Amino acid sequence: MNSDHPAVTVIGLGSMGSALAAALLDRGHPTTVWNRTAGRAEALAARGARPAATPGEAVAASPLVVACVLDYEALRAVLEPVEGSLAGKVLVNLTSGSPEQARETAGWARSLGAGYLDGAIMTTPPGVGSAEMMFLYSGPPEVFDAHRPTLAALGDPVHLGADPGLASLYDAALLGLMWSTLTGWLHGAALLGAEKEEATAFTPFAVRWLTAVAGFMTTYAPQVDAGRYPGDDATVDVQIAAIDHLIHAARARGVDNALPELLKHTMERARDAGHGSDSYASVIEVLKNPAGGR
Amino acid sequence: MNSDHPAVTVIGLGSMGSALAAALLDRGHPTTVWNRTAGRAEALAARGARPAATPGEAVAASPLVVACVLDYEALRAVLEPVEGSLAGKVLVNLTSGSPEQARETAGWARSLGAGYLDGAIMTTPPGVGSAEMMFLYSGPPEVFDAHRPTLAALGDPVHLGADPGLASLYDAALLGLMWSTLTGWLHGAALLGAEKEEATAFTPFAVRWLTAVAGFMTTYAPQVDAGRYPGDDATVDVQIAAIDHLIHAARARGVDNALPELLKHTMERARDAGHGSDSYASVIEVLKNPAGGR
Ligand SMILES: [Ca+2]
Ligand SMILES: [Ca+2]
Repeated sequence: MNSDHPAVTVIGLGSMGSALAAALLDRGHPTTVWNRTAGRAEALAARGARPAATPGEAVAASPLVVACVLDYEALRAVLEPVEGSLAGKVLVNLTSGSPEQARETAGWARSLGAGYLDGAIMTTPPGVGSAEMMFLYSGPPEVFDAHRPTLAALGDPVHLGADPGLASLYDAALLGLMWSTLTGWLHGAALLGAEKEEATAFTPFAVRWLTAVAGFMTTYAPQVDAGRYPGDDATVDVQIAAIDHLIHAARARGVDNALPELLKHTMERARDAGHGSDSYASVIEVLKNPAGGR
Repeated sequence: MNSDHPAVTVIGLGSMGSALAAALLDRGHPTTVWNRTAGRAEALAARGARPAATPGEAVAASPLVVACVLDYEALRAVLEPVEGSLAGKVLVNLTSGSPEQARETAGWARSLGAGYLDGAIMTTPPGVGSAEMMFLYSGPPEVFDAHRPTLAALGDPVHLGADPGLASLYDAALLGLMWSTLTGWLHGAALLGAEKEEATAFTPFAVRWLTAVAGFMTTYAPQVDAGRYPGDDATVDVQIAAIDHLIHAARARGVDNALPELLKHTMERARDAGHGSDSYASVIEVLKNPAGGR
């Protein structure tokens, strides 16, 4: 065993799990792999991985066990039959799920004498192994600190706090931001496409504009925490007037308006709640509670 | 007249128009200002601006006239009575409106012997004067090129093309991206806030994540132009499964789910149209046409 490159076991070899194992192999970690079906393990064996015959053998092979399976039920189905082998190990669970599932699984691991980190992978499989990509972790800080150098093989390891539910909660919040942003971008591309402007022409401006939008977020974050939203730069009323230009332009070109209409309705709810002269950050006040009648 | 710093007239002194005039004064341009009500002009006069008594006097004072008023109707109401004075001038119209209004106004200006650029200001008043902020322009390239050095006083001048409607179209598309992104971020902040995570803790991760999302946009833009969406990195089916985690987490915390539910519904429409194994970029196919029943 090379102490600079501790042994790691990877359980679950879908496209993401395979990318995790490949990144560990690339950094020189002795890597044991296990998957329910054997094909993926064979592909990784050709790159130097050691396929385990059973989950128990896989867990026994390394002090650190990284799991990336379909869901938490699948995780427990694989590991509960061999749970005696987890004592003294650290389980890093990169399976997607809820904060509640993460907390429950952390309790189960603790009861077995295993360390536990819950994690979220903020990239696609091709991005695994890049130091630019965030891997979010939550759980005991001393467990994170002990394994940070190994986890750095996968991406930039970020520790969010001791509560094991935090990684899943941040994961959900950041993916929501991604879907909103991508859909807004695609709506703009559809609008411009109706006038034969190419997405490859629009996108560099969209990317640059996101830097300005990130600046607005940074300005507004302290307003959210303070619950006060001074509209010094641009008010909800101004945004409501402006979104009509988008809605009209999209309608005139036969582009779907469900997203801008929902955004306008959300702004109008903020205005009706007394935030017309406040900044856009005040829209969070209507997001904090479900809309009436829902 | 200083030929390095040509004279400019600014018509319309709301918070944005005042910021434009102030940025021109800061760069040493002799700046004439006019506003329907006089208070704002006096404030700028104290910084060196020359208040004009009438729109005709304002237009006559400078070769370049920058207008930033409530809407295109207001612009025509101010300038039509003095339209004879526009011959040989260049009108830069930074008023918000539709591509159709921009094209019509360009035709009107041309009929008067005036040059015309339509523009869009991609920042808030406090950002005016910063070279990082985009000002979008459309109209004759030779008119843009002649006045680019002066327009650089306001922000980074970007020329989109000869069609005067392009600036308004890009403006609408980029603002739509902004509202989508900000609302997605606020939804995430509301979700995390329900667990006492502060927006100022979340936002640096959100800002960093936007860089990755911008990378996805850059990857997907050529797919949009080609109309083919290989799902090599993550498929619509995978995203539909993942957004359920967000919807469940938000519901469990009493956070409004209208935005993620609309996003999920849009993804499901893409899946139902045969794009389940395609990338998220394929969602544009359902945005290109209004949803059935609308
Ligand atoms: Ca997770
Ligand atoms: Ca415009």
